[in-house]
Amino acid sequence: AEVKKIAVIAGDGIGPEVVAEAEKVLKRTEELFGYRFETEHALFGGIAIDEKGTPLPEETLAVCRKADAVLLGAVGGPKWDNNPKELRPETGLLGIRKALGLFSNLRPAVVFDCLKDASTLKPEVLEGTDLMVVRELTGGIYFGEKYRRDTDQGQEAVDTCAYNVSEVERIVRQAFEIAQKRRKKLASVDKANVLETSRLWREVVNRVAPEYPDVELEHVLVDNCAMQLLRRPSSFDVIVTENMFGDILSDEAAMLTGSIGMLSSASLGEGSFGLYEPVHGSAPDIAGQNLANPIATILSVALMFRMTFGYADAADAIERAVADVLNAGHRTGDIAVDKSKAIGTVAMGDLIVAAM
Amino acid sequence: AEVKKIAVIAGDGIGPEVVAEAEKVLKRTEELFGYRFETEHALFGGIAIDEKGTPLPEETLAVCRKADAVLLGAVGGPKWDNNPKELRPETGLLGIRKALGLFSNLRPAVVFDCLKDASTLKPEVLEGTDLMVVRELTGGIYFGEKYRRDTDQGQEAVDTCAYNVSEVERIVRQAFEIAQKRRKKLASVDKANVLETSRLWREVVNRVAPEYPDVELEHVLVDNCAMQLLRRPSSFDVIVTENMFGDILSDEAAMLTGSIGMLSSASLGEGSFGLYEPVHGSAPDIAGQNLANPIATILSVALMFRMTFGYADAADAIERAVADVLNAGHRTGDIAVDKSKAIGTVAMGDLIVAAM
Ligand SMILES: CC(C)[C@H](C(=O)O)[C@@H](O)C(=O)O
Ligand SMILES: CC(C)[C@H](C(=O)O)[C@@H](O)C(=O)O
Repeated sequence: AEVKKIAVIAGDGIGPEVVAEAEKVLKRTEELFGYRFETEHALFGGIAIDEKGTPLPEETLAVCRKADAVLLGAVGGPKWDNNPKELRPETGLLGIRKALGLFSNLRPAVVFDCLKDASTLKPEVLEGTDLMVVRELTGGIYFGEKYRRDTDQGQEAVDTCAYNVSEVERIVRQAFEIAQKRRKKLASVDKANVLETSRLWREVVNRVAPEYPDVELEHVLVDNCAMQLLRRPSSFDVIVTENMFGDILSDEAAMLTGSIGMLSSASLGEGSFGLYEPVHGSAPDIAGQNLANPIATILSVALMFRMTFGYADAADAIERAVADVLNAGHRTGDIAVDKSKAIGTVAMGDLIVAAM
Repeated sequence: AEVKKIAVIAGDGIGPEVVAEAEKVLKRTEELFGYRFETEHALFGGIAIDEKGTPLPEETLAVCRKADAVLLGAVGGPKWDNNPKELRPETGLLGIRKALGLFSNLRPAVVFDCLKDASTLKPEVLEGTDLMVVRELTGGIYFGEKYRRDTDQGQEAVDTCAYNVSEVERIVRQAFEIAQKRRKKLASVDKANVLETSRLWREVVNRVAPEYPDVELEHVLVDNCAMQLLRRPSSFDVIVTENMFGDILSDEAAMLTGSIGMLSSASLGEGSFGLYEPVHGSAPDIAGQNLANPIATILSVALMFRMTFGYADAADAIERAVADVLNAGHRTGDIAVDKSKAIGTVAMGDLIVAAM
């Protein structure tokens, strides 16, 4: 098989630990399916600040650009929280999204059977919840002009939120296409009763909608969406929205599943290239203690196989192995009911590899 | 007693029905406590568009300006949803907030005992939830410059989010003061890892915090807050945030209590003047059918008594009457378990008045 190049960014906190388990899965996939991967590690986030003086070194970008896909662990931690902006891990995260043109962030929020009770929502409300937030990732208020200026009322800070037609159109089309492959329902979330960017957004959605006649479209105001996610989570299929709303709603959606330690995400650009990472953060409090749950990162590999490489067989094998290990009762601390029986990061990775 | 002037804005949908019940409560308060109210009705929202050609007629503003407080039912409905911006009810809502200088929106989210099971959250998670969202209401992206321009990528829409130090300081101080009268915990919500306005916000919070040493302060990122509201709702006391985040989070918080049909809100400016309204909307689907729950509007009157007039005795009487009527088992359709036993808007109002 053709060699696929994967840039591996372990990052900070539990990042290196969970990524190490995912790399075992890559290796096992080569053995089982004959696919071939070439991994190259790169520094990013806090560790890159410490070692290179910048969260996103040029070499790291170069490694990503040469690769077919990127696997990212997690970045950030209290150590860098009070740094000036250019020396913060988040700045690297925004930078890599922009530099690699990753305009679309897919965050599936599903309920894992074995974690049904982990949610704070009633099981009967959660029943059947399986939604995907498609978040615009390189536009809006995240990337608009920002500045301070002096006024009579003291200093003023300004953020600018801008969207143009093509930025909206490409993400909206992608969301329609994803909906076509799922339950054919799309909720477009905006604040069109207040924001000009939302009015443009809604115009574009309405203009392209007739090209996807098989998809049932609803427009939902962002405040109402925050409520409906709680009231009727299972009624959503695909939710598409702009960057800032997507940040908030995808976290709300992930949390309500109770399965946040298990959720993976993909950030995509124009072609098949993608960056894959767990939804959870760097969890500095448990870093380096073999306590982290590697499943979200391992499932990110499965997502990469499916979306970037088209290796559905290997993706299936990984997902099935994860399900088997969970069904056999194995749990890391975050998802264990009886914490005394919890297994470590490495043991969980080994079990999944063995179950493939 | 001094005559208190109340501007009454019934608005659209169920607005007139719920406001009518609240007015009975005003009248009963006069009889019981000797307070004196003078009410003046004014057109606002959809009905004002229909009758006056604008959602916020000058006369309405004049009536509000002469008054000591405003009681608002609800505005909006599908009839006006596709109107141009100047002819939409929401535009009136933003206009009245700005014109009356109502920079602070208080939305308590509490769980009513009789509605414990109405929430989609597990009762044990909800237990003890009693929080207040303090939302900045006249700044940020809601009121910043908005425009379109042509670019190579098609039309571009722009919204501007701006905050100056004094806008942030006044709302933050108010939130600290509210926290001092409650459980002395304040969560300031921002997106300081991305937004310049959030960085200014956080600086101001940190600068004034030492003046409120009895209040325990935490900074929470907005995406994390959307998650923590689900995970540990009862751990929050007061949440203070900017306009757009407050819109989303206050709706999420209200919905998770399961009591949204019972929640009242206050919008305040510099002095004691305030605008009081239920958190719920105009519910056009059930309008004019004597089906609406008037309790949130009646409790908005109690909030007005407490916050604007200092009539704690009358506020207590109203709140106690509502509790008594609910404890006696009376329910409107929205909160009834057995819908066949539900009573109407007018009957609920009458029972509460009788119980005062
Ligand atoms: C760390 C932060 C800049 C980032 C974002 O807001 O996009 C994170 O919350 C995320 O959702 O990936
Ligand atoms: C109707 C709309 C403009 C308004 C807002 O966003 O402020 C509403 O959602 C609210 O929260 O009062």
